[in-house]
Amino acid sequence: MEDIKIKFGQRVRELRISKGYSQEKLAELSDLDRTYIPGIEAGKRNVSLVVVEKIAKAFNITISELLNQL
Amino acid sequence: MEDIKIKFGQRVRELRISKGYSQEKLAELSDLDRTYIPGIEAGKRNVSLVVVEKIAKAFNITISELLNQL
Repeated sequence: MEDIKIKFGQRVRELRISKGYSQEKLAELSDLDRTYIPGIEAGKRNVSLVVVEKIAKAFNITISELLNQL
Repeated sequence: MEDIKIKFGQRVRELRISKGYSQEKLAELSDLDRTYIPGIEAGKRNVSLVVVEKIAKAFNITISELLNQL
């Protein structure tokens, strides 16, 4: 079963691109350091619930929607 | 807006009780240290995605279901 970090990273990347955001833009919207986003998308970060919530808010979706089918 | 850690803790507690699990049983099923569960339920832990996945598996539900409406 694929690593949850990798699946989450792929989901963030797909959503970011579909919204036309750069990694810098997503970092700004989610109030995260801009160097954090590449690590998340590469599946290298075991993000916390608070970070998941920040990213969901940046995409204007619920946490549950962000993690749907993961 | 209520802190995500507190909402998650309440959700874990509700599910655990509805399944009739003790905190020790949930810790065992989710392969987490048994001292970790009280802290989660008290909303004191900013759990990681890997921990969320472990707890979802222990309840035999998806991550998305575990975090539904949070």
